Amino acid sequence: MIRIAVDAMGGDNAPKSNVLGAVKALKEKKDIELILVGREEEIKAILSGQDYDQGRLRIVHADEVIGTDEEPAVAIKKKKNSSLIIGMKMLREGEAEAFVSAGSTGAILIGGQVVAGRIKGVKRAPLAVIIPTISGKALLIDGGANVDCRPESLLQFAVMGSLYAEYAMKIKNPRVGLVNIGTEEDKGNMLVREAFPMLQSCQEINFIGNVEARDVISHCADVLVCEAFAGNIVLKTMEGVSSAIFRKIKEAAMTDMRSKIGGKLLKPYLYSMKKEFDASEYGGAPMLGLNGLVVKAHGNSQEKQIRTAILQCVGFYENDLKDKISAAIRKEKENSVKSEDGAPGAEE
Amino acid sequence: MIRIAVDAMGGDNAPKSNVLGAVKALKEKKDIELILVGREEEIKAILSGQDYDQGRLRIVHADEVIGTDEEPAVAIKKKKNSSLIIGMKMLREGEAEAFVSAGSTGAILIGGQVVAGRIKGVKRAPLAVIIPTISGKALLIDGGANVDCRPESLLQFAVMGSLYAEYAMKIKNPRVGLVNIGTEEDKGNMLVREAFPMLQSCQEINFIGNVEARDVISHCADVLVCEAFAGNIVLKTMEGVSSAIFRKIKEAAMTDMRSKIGGKLLKPYLYSMKKEFDASEYGGAPMLGLNGLVVKAHGNSQEKQIRTAILQCVGFYENDLKDKISAAIRKEKENSVKSEDGAPGAEE
Repeated sequence: MIRIAVDAMGGDNAPKSNVLGAVKALKEKKDIELILVGREEEIKAILSGQDYDQGRLRIVHADEVIGTDEEPAVAIKKKKNSSLIIGMKMLREGEAEAFVSAGSTGAILIGGQVVAGRIKGVKRAPLAVIIPTISGKALLIDGGANVDCRPESLLQFAVMGSLYAEYAMKIKNPRVGLVNIGTEEDKGNMLVREAFPMLQSCQEINFIGNVEARDVISHCADVLVCEAFAGNIVLKTMEGVSSAIFRKIKEAAMTDMRSKIGGKLLKPYLYSMKKEFDASEYGGAPMLGLNGLVVKAHGNSQEKQIRTAILQCVGFYENDLKDKISAAIRKEKENSVKSEDGAPGAEE
Repeated sequence: MIRIAVDAMGGDNAPKSNVLGAVKALKEKKDIELILVGREEEIKAILSGQDYDQGRLRIVHADEVIGTDEEPAVAIKKKKNSSLIIGMKMLREGEAEAFVSAGSTGAILIGGQVVAGRIKGVKRAPLAVIIPTISGKALLIDGGANVDCRPESLLQFAVMGSLYAEYAMKIKNPRVGLVNIGTEEDKGNMLVREAFPMLQSCQEINFIGNVEARDVISHCADVLVCEAFAGNIVLKTMEGVSSAIFRKIKEAAMTDMRSKIGGKLLKPYLYSMKKEFDASEYGGAPMLGLNGLVVKAHGNSQEKQIRTAILQCVGFYENDLKDKISAAIRKEKENSVKSEDGAPGAEE
């Protein structure tokens, strides 16, 4: 039985969509137990009349809610009784294996590191974002958690992202690329130039070298490694450009009779393409390297997205990803200590 | 008379497109004098039979060509007789006011700083890239020249970009935004957090605060300030996503009879939209802060793009932009010295 805590109060459509999304997930998967964290009365009111397996769903009351307008660091300290903090604590205490929230991104990122806590050896816990490409999903890591990080952290992101891609996303021997402004080894800023040889000599990953932001959408790599400033810029630019283009097409298809007919005929194709390029359709963003999996669902998640984010946690646990990450980080550390010592085998 | 040197040998379609593009520009503008730098015999062969004002076009012979496959720093040192180096030297010596090249970006960026040289007080010379938005052009600065730069450089980019937008792009009181991963003042990495108050207290610009990469395409600001790693990622992601979407639409419009008819009808609208979103349609990228204007034209420039890049230089000179940049940089430096001294008026 996998115990997944769900923040009933976070997000634009909470608590209703969160609770109903949880009920949906519960019906689909028999081996999960859900813990709805939030205001008990409100949750109960939504649950009443719903048909679900009551033995696998319980409520943990949480009085407070952290809003998206609050300063995350302050809110985390002050609102100890918020659904977000209580959910994170359950991870730390081992009362749940995963926590899904559509609440304040800032609070989730800080709460993850500070309250849930990191796996031993993990320097910084990245937010891995599943992104659309022209041929399926890829994983961008870090998409928003750690700016100004060290090359060692990029190496850990690569290792964690590769494991997530392989076991949770089912991508065989995932190709790991370092996001850069050119493909040559010596391109880029200090950070990526220092990270390059570290990724290259890492035996836990299938490193394919530098990749350019232009090729991300063409699926140049399955795992795209970067610090969060660059990563967030990739994500937001993708989002902005694709939505602007589809908006413009809609406008163009209203110009005159010819364009109206053309637009009408192409509409279903364009609509499904728009969905393909919409990252929010791709479930939540897993925050990796923590004592338990934290999944950040989109703030505007509906039932369907909450359901997807919950089910996403199952693959993580079925494959013991937490243990795999822990082992890989330990192994990588041993290797790097060995190479620093100039010990035998360190030359590889 | 504005003297513009043109690298006849740089780019995929050189020397033919470069020479013919120059002839085109010469015919359109009466107050320019063009200097074609490159292999005299080859240039002469292309010019023969062309009808143009011979009094305003001359050739400066250059034996060598720097290829895009060469290591820029090495090529700059070794190929003193290349068209690129000779053109840059003409700027330094005051023999030309501007230099247009479609050659190796790396060599242009290094050659600009090292051979042409910077205006006194300018710390680093940024590549300003004119980008498409849903409502006209904007200027992204730095789009590729300076990674790992200091906040002081971002401030100078803002000042130079603002002047270019106002006088060369004719945008009145251009809104200057700092590219960041959130709009709040305390968002982002160390670099942008330190740069923010400097831009805010700068009196030479109309600073509107942080802007997100998602909104760049929606014209959230006229001048988008960033260091080159982030800037290049914005540019390349825009390019990649927009070309992927249009490619996908083309494919979708081949699915079946319905989509084929729809596609046929919408084609002219989509085609003009695709052009709108194509940065390569927007002339060259000006490298600012140098002893003369360097314009980097796209590597695959045709006649038309070379012509546009040449004509772009005219606005720069008609408005004394070099002097304006020099004066603004000096003034900004005085202001910052004043504030450090705590002198009167420094509190603003």
